[in-house]
Amino acid sequence: MTVYALDSSNGLAARIGRAIGDRVVLLEGKEFPDGESYVRVPQRPEGPAILVASLHPPQDKNFVKLLLALEAISALKPEGLFVVVPYLAYARQDKRFLEGEPISVKVILRSIEAAGATGLVVVDVHKPSALSEHLSIPHRNAMPSREVAEYFKGRLRSPLVLAPDAGALERAKIVAEHLSADYDYLVKERDRVTGEVRAQPKSMDVQGRDVLIVDDIISTGGTVALAASTVLRQGASRVFAACTHAVMVKGALDLMMSSGVEEVVATDTVPSPVSRITVAPAIVEALKSLFDEVL
Amino acid sequence: MTVYALDSSNGLAARIGRAIGDRVVLLEGKEFPDGESYVRVPQRPEGPAILVASLHPPQDKNFVKLLLALEAISALKPEGLFVVVPYLAYARQDKRFLEGEPISVKVILRSIEAAGATGLVVVDVHKPSALSEHLSIPHRNAMPSREVAEYFKGRLRSPLVLAPDAGALERAKIVAEHLSADYDYLVKERDRVTGEVRAQPKSMDVQGRDVLIVDDIISTGGTVALAASTVLRQGASRVFAACTHAVMVKGALDLMMSSGVEEVVATDTVPSPVSRITVAPAIVEALKSLFDEVL
Repeated sequence: MTVYALDSSNGLAARIGRAIGDRVVLLEGKEFPDGESYVRVPQRPEGPAILVASLHPPQDKNFVKLLLALEAISALKPEGLFVVVPYLAYARQDKRFLEGEPISVKVILRSIEAAGATGLVVVDVHKPSALSEHLSIPHRNAMPSREVAEYFKGRLRSPLVLAPDAGALERAKIVAEHLSADYDYLVKERDRVTGEVRAQPKSMDVQGRDVLIVDDIISTGGTVALAASTVLRQGASRVFAACTHAVMVKGALDLMMSSGVEEVVATDTVPSPVSRITVAPAIVEALKSLFDEVL
Repeated sequence: MTVYALDSSNGLAARIGRAIGDRVVLLEGKEFPDGESYVRVPQRPEGPAILVASLHPPQDKNFVKLLLALEAISALKPEGLFVVVPYLAYARQDKRFLEGEPISVKVILRSIEAAGATGLVVVDVHKPSALSEHLSIPHRNAMPSREVAEYFKGRLRSPLVLAPDAGALERAKIVAEHLSADYDYLVKERDRVTGEVRAQPKSMDVQGRDVLIVDDIISTGGTVALAASTVLRQGASRVFAACTHAVMVKGALDLMMSSGVEEVVATDTVPSPVSRITVAPAIVEALKSLFDEVL
C-alpha cells in the first residue's frame, strides 16, 4: 500500500499514514508562471494506492491538482486507487434550488470518478445520499462524531448539544449520545416588533447550562455567532462550537469570539488554527471497510 | 439555437453570436464568501445549445465554472450541447515527459465530456491529435491562420514568417502562404565562447527583411524577445509577433517591446490589450462543420 498526499493535505495524510503504519509520499508540485499547476508522482505505488487530497480554499486549484494526481497515479497502474477527500468542496450545492442551477457536487464527484478513482472516502459530507446518487464507485462517509465528543468529555457542565437547524440534528444527536447529554436544534426567528433575528433552541431550556453547537461547516461564523448571543442572553452558562470543516473566511473566528463563544474547535479536514481534533482514526476505519468491500 | 457565455468569454461570444445571427445569453454567476463559484442558466435553450467558455487565467476557476455550466445546461435537455473553449488550459502538458507526470490535457478534456458536452470546438490547440486521443465526442480545432495573415497583409516588406521551433512550422507556413511570404523556424543555440543564447532562423537570411514570428501561445514572451534581439542584430528591418493565445504573464509585453519588437498582436481567445484579431469567423466555420456531422 502506498499513501500519497497533495501539499494541501500533508498533515492529515501523515496522521493517516501513521495510523496504518505506512510512510506517506508527498506529490511533487509547482505552479507555472501563467498559473497552471503541475504535479508529479515521485515513486511508483506498491499494491493499492491511497491519495489524500482535501478541497478547501483555493478549492478550484486543489480540485484540478487532485484530478491531475489521479491521472498520474492511475497511469502507474496501482491495484486500486482510493481517494480520501477530507473536505469535499461544492458539497452544499447538492440539488437544484432554482431552475437553471447546477448540482455542483455532482460535477466534482463525476470528475473524480472519470479521472480514475476506484473508491472514495469523504468526511461528514453535507448530504451523504449525494454520494450514491452521483458515484458508481464504492464510497464511504466517515463521521468524526466520536472524536468530537471525546474532545469535550468531562469538560462541560449540564451540557446541551445544539444543531444549527433541524436537518443537522442527527450529527448533534450522535455527539450528545457519546456525551450522555441532551440535544436540540436551533430555530431562527425574526422579532416582529424589533426586527431582530434570534436563533434559539426549539424546546430545550439553556438556563445555567453549557451549550455545544455542532455543525458540519463553519464558513462565515454567522449562525454560530447568532446562536451564541441568543443563548447567552437566555442564561446559558458557556457556549462552545465544534465543526468538522473549518472553512472559515476572514473574520469568522473574531465574529464568533466577540459573540461570546468560549472556544471554537474543528477537525483537521481543513487545516486551521482551531483544527485540534484529528479525523485520521475515522478515515482509517472507513478505508478498512472500503478495502473489505473491494479488495 | 441558444448561445451561452461565461463571463470570461462574453466579448468573443458576442462576436460569435453576431456572426450566426443569435443573441448571446450571459450566464449568471457569483462567488460565495469561501471562494466557491456559482453559475446559473437564466433562460432555457431553444434547439441546440452552444456554450462559449475560455480557460485563460484564472484557469482552474474558469474550468470549474465551465463544468458547472455544462451540468446546468445539460439538465435543461438541449438538442445537443456544443462547447467552444477558445483557449484550452493545460494543453501543453500533452504527454508524460517524465514518469509519474499526468497528461493534464486529458484530465481537462475528459472532465468536459463527463460533464455533458456532446461536441467541442477549440482554437489552435497545442497538439491537435490530443483531441481524438482523449475525446469520444465530435470535435474541431479551429485555426485562425487566415485571420492572422489578413491582419498583416500589405503591411510587411519582404516578409519572412518564423516559427519559434520546428514543431510549430506548420502554423507559420500557412500564415506565410496566405501572405505569399517565405517561412522558416528558429533554432536556439548557445555560443560556446560567450555562453550567450541566440534564436536564429534555421536557414533563411533576415537581412533587410520584415520578420513575423508566429506562435500559438505567448506566455512569458521570452522566446519572442530572444528571437527579436537576435534577428535585429543580424540585420532584420522590423520584427512583429503574432500569437493565437495571449496568456501573457506580467511583464511579458514589456520584455518583448524592449527587445525591439515593433508590434505584438493576438487573437481574442484570451482577452488582452493586444487582442486585435477575432477568431469568431474560424469558430463559426468549425461549429457549422460540427453541426453538419452531428445534427
